[in-house]
Amino acid sequence: MHGSGDVEITRVIGIEEAGEGDLTFISNKKYFPYLKTTRASAVILAPEIQPPSMPTLRTPNPYLAFARAIEFFYRPPEPEPGIHPSAIIHPEASVGEGVRAGANAVIQRGARIGAGVVLYPNCTIYPHAQIGDGTVIHSNAVVREYVRIGMRCVIQNGAIIGGDGFGFAPAGDGTYHKIIQSGIVVLEDDVEIGANTTIDRATVGETRVRAGAKIDNLVQIGHGCEVGENSVLAAQVGLAGSTSIGKNVILAGQVGAAGHLHIGDNARATAQSGIPASVDAGATVSGYPAIDNTLWRKASVLFPRLPEMQKRIRELEKLIEELKTMLQEK
Amino acid sequence: MHGSGDVEITRVIGIEEAGEGDLTFISNKKYFPYLKTTRASAVILAPEIQPPSMPTLRTPNPYLAFARAIEFFYRPPEPEPGIHPSAIIHPEASVGEGVRAGANAVIQRGARIGAGVVLYPNCTIYPHAQIGDGTVIHSNAVVREYVRIGMRCVIQNGAIIGGDGFGFAPAGDGTYHKIIQSGIVVLEDDVEIGANTTIDRATVGETRVRAGAKIDNLVQIGHGCEVGENSVLAAQVGLAGSTSIGKNVILAGQVGAAGHLHIGDNARATAQSGIPASVDAGATVSGYPAIDNTLWRKASVLFPRLPEMQKRIRELEKLIEELKTMLQEK
Amino acid sequence: MHGSGDVEITRVIGIEEAGEGDLTFISNKKYFPYLKTTRASAVILAPEIQPPSMPTLRTPNPYLAFARAIEFFYRPPEPEPGIHPSAIIHPEASVGEGVRAGANAVIQRGARIGAGVVLYPNCTIYPHAQIGDGTVIHSNAVVREYVRIGMRCVIQNGAIIGGDGFGFAPAGDGTYHKIIQSGIVVLEDDVEIGANTTIDRATVGETRVRAGAKIDNLVQIGHGCEVGENSVLAAQVGLAGSTSIGKNVILAGQVGAAGHLHIGDNARATAQSGIPASVDAGATVSGYPAIDNTLWRKASVLFPRLPEMQKRIRELEKLIEELKTMLQEK
Repeated sequence: MHGSGDVEITRVIGIEEAGEGDLTFISNKKYFPYLKTTRASAVILAPEIQPPSMPTLRTPNPYLAFARAIEFFYRPPEPEPGIHPSAIIHPEASVGEGVRAGANAVIQRGARIGAGVVLYPNCTIYPHAQIGDGTVIHSNAVVREYVRIGMRCVIQNGAIIGGDGFGFAPAGDGTYHKIIQSGIVVLEDDVEIGANTTIDRATVGETRVRAGAKIDNLVQIGHGCEVGENSVLAAQVGLAGSTSIGKNVILAGQVGAAGHLHIGDNARATAQSGIPASVDAGATVSGYPAIDNTLWRKASVLFPRLPEMQKRIRELEKLIEELKTMLQEK
Repeated sequence: MHGSGDVEITRVIGIEEAGEGDLTFISNKKYFPYLKTTRASAVILAPEIQPPSMPTLRTPNPYLAFARAIEFFYRPPEPEPGIHPSAIIHPEASVGEGVRAGANAVIQRGARIGAGVVLYPNCTIYPHAQIGDGTVIHSNAVVREYVRIGMRCVIQNGAIIGGDGFGFAPAGDGTYHKIIQSGIVVLEDDVEIGANTTIDRATVGETRVRAGAKIDNLVQIGHGCEVGENSVLAAQVGLAGSTSIGKNVILAGQVGAAGHLHIGDNARATAQSGIPASVDAGATVSGYPAIDNTLWRKASVLFPRLPEMQKRIRELEKLIEELKTMLQEK
Repeated sequence: MHGSGDVEITRVIGIEEAGEGDLTFISNKKYFPYLKTTRASAVILAPEIQPPSMPTLRTPNPYLAFARAIEFFYRPPEPEPGIHPSAIIHPEASVGEGVRAGANAVIQRGARIGAGVVLYPNCTIYPHAQIGDGTVIHSNAVVREYVRIGMRCVIQNGAIIGGDGFGFAPAGDGTYHKIIQSGIVVLEDDVEIGANTTIDRATVGETRVRAGAKIDNLVQIGHGCEVGENSVLAAQVGLAGSTSIGKNVILAGQVGAAGHLHIGDNARATAQSGIPASVDAGATVSGYPAIDNTLWRKASVLFPRLPEMQKRIRELEKLIEELKTMLQEK
């Protein structure tokens, strides 16, 4: 703590909007200039930054402190307690203690819902799915048959966990024969799945998202994929079938990865990269097809200069022709 | 009007399919050649086009006239009047005059639904959401807690307005701490949101889509973004968090924009562009990473000629070696 | 058959996971090396591959044989028979023999549901939609007004068939006038539509997906498009309006195609291609903008060598300057 502890805080907000009574934070250096002009009453900062005149909370992890401050000031509305009378729960389903199920939620035959699970209105649990203690399933999400979801997961609205994988065998006459997708999806503990994301069940075996992985909206995870512990997939990422992703990997928005490849632990891919082949642990890749990020940056800077490069080649050809003539004339 | 006014029109249709009794239009010049062969009974054209022999309605805005003609011939089925007995409306929700709510629609505690709103079957309104007069929410769309939607908006099926933003603070041990998304989404008046599009609530403050903006299907709008008045986002566009888009911007299909940047008024991005940094008002950008469109076109034409360029460089190197030898021998 | 027919098979599984009692298969040559190490009890192989020592079923189409083997060992849970009491069926809808409708499924006025159709819980059928015999509609999918779906189709969860096309006429003052989307969507027989995919209704006329086409998750098909027989669109593909795709076309993941163009029969586009113009029948295209695949591969290999190419041009310029000086001095 630096500065007066007397200031009254009523809200937590971003630095651009902050005014009197607001607590704000900076972790992205893009926002340093705002430190001089903000009217916030207090700010959370990393220790290496020169504290401004206002009251300052300095911490090695300003973003985490900011997260905790938000929790202090805001709680989302509590879901209604108990099972809403319009929820449809199959008599052969099992429902744990303290489960809350909203209006028109549907739990089908043989499903097992752990203690303290929250099912928001209009979500649908297929037969024999299992949902671990404390998990939250938002409205209009779907959990398909035999899928297993761990504890403390959050499934945002409209996410589809366990839809059929995209598997069709060419029948030989141009038509396709649907391959029954007999496998499942397993989400381990503490996984978050974004709105309208789709995670396909495996053809055989399982599609698995390991503990702590965070997956954003509108992501596609094909059948038989594996996403490693604490890996992060940003919005609109697509993984073709049987792709495996290591631990602590970060794929930025709209990245696509071909099937049957491996992305090593701690690897990163920048936005819109198209990954055609396996990526080494710790590598950062970019581009289409994806290559080493440093190389890609250098080449990308030159791409707009292709017309100039072509012109220089043409001039060299002319010059050399002239030189040749001069030389022959001597 | 040009030509006979006696012709009977029974349908409005595209020029390729048009036959006797059909009214058609041309605004895209790709379709000019069809003017000579169409069997349509009448056509809507811009004044600068030479009218064909058939009856012609000439107007400076043929596309708008076509839109009005469709309205004359077709009305979608009226939603059922009143509140369906299976709809679940929380006693503490407020529902305006003339609201229609379809089967199994769910309106939760504290939500406020304006006059004349249409809620199609199976849509879900979370606690304390507000929906302005005359707005239409299609089946399986979700409006999350505290979200505010303006008047005369259209929310297509499966759209998720106000799902949690993708915010996680690294806890230091590889795992992530979920940051409660305490902000809201505001859609101003006359906004349209496409099917299965996701618009995330802000971490703090708001995500805002300004009046008249039109957003297509499967678009991702991250937490804290702002989309300006009358801007148009085509299908599968993705905006990372805290991106702000000016007025009358057009982003074509599958464009991605990184976070914390600004796209100026009237800017355009062609399909699949990847926008890494702010874009000036009025600019047109393309490519990955996105650059000026004219430059991009010139460079793109040369990309397939890279093998030839490399060959020419190699030949130049050989020639210069020869010249050098010749010169030294003289 | 090759080897002992006595071995007992209890499961079908991928070659990496296979153990005793498992039947597996190889069709992708990436997996040939596993043949030597697998502990599977039997394997399905193409006739041209040298059979291993284990029992082997050889067939010209191992993938199809594998599909049939899965059907032998696994059946998804049967949907509950009959109409669930909570399903809402409009008295003016028609429902064929043997239809199963799950909890909270909604069938609106004038819809016609063919014999043996399965409607999973929480799906919504709009007025006057028609669904052919034997089609399966998964939970939270939506079929909009007047849409026509053929026989034996599968609509995965959350798919939206017939949402409004993205059509707005500029009103001249910066705002847009919504064009009523008066057309329909037609899905012919044996079509599969993936989870959260959106297929827009036409402005006028129809959007059509022809018999046997297979469309993966999160795909966007714009208004007025046509997808030909047995064509395959992988996840996150986007087609702008009025694009027509021939027969047996394959578009890989995240491909985008601009509007008003034609992709010929048997054409292919590799992942993330951006298709700006029509593609010839039988062609394979790649890149952004998409060009011939062979050319694209050659050019792509050189893209990372742009810095080196530029350096070589600079050196050539220096060398030629030196030669010129030498020559002038002679």
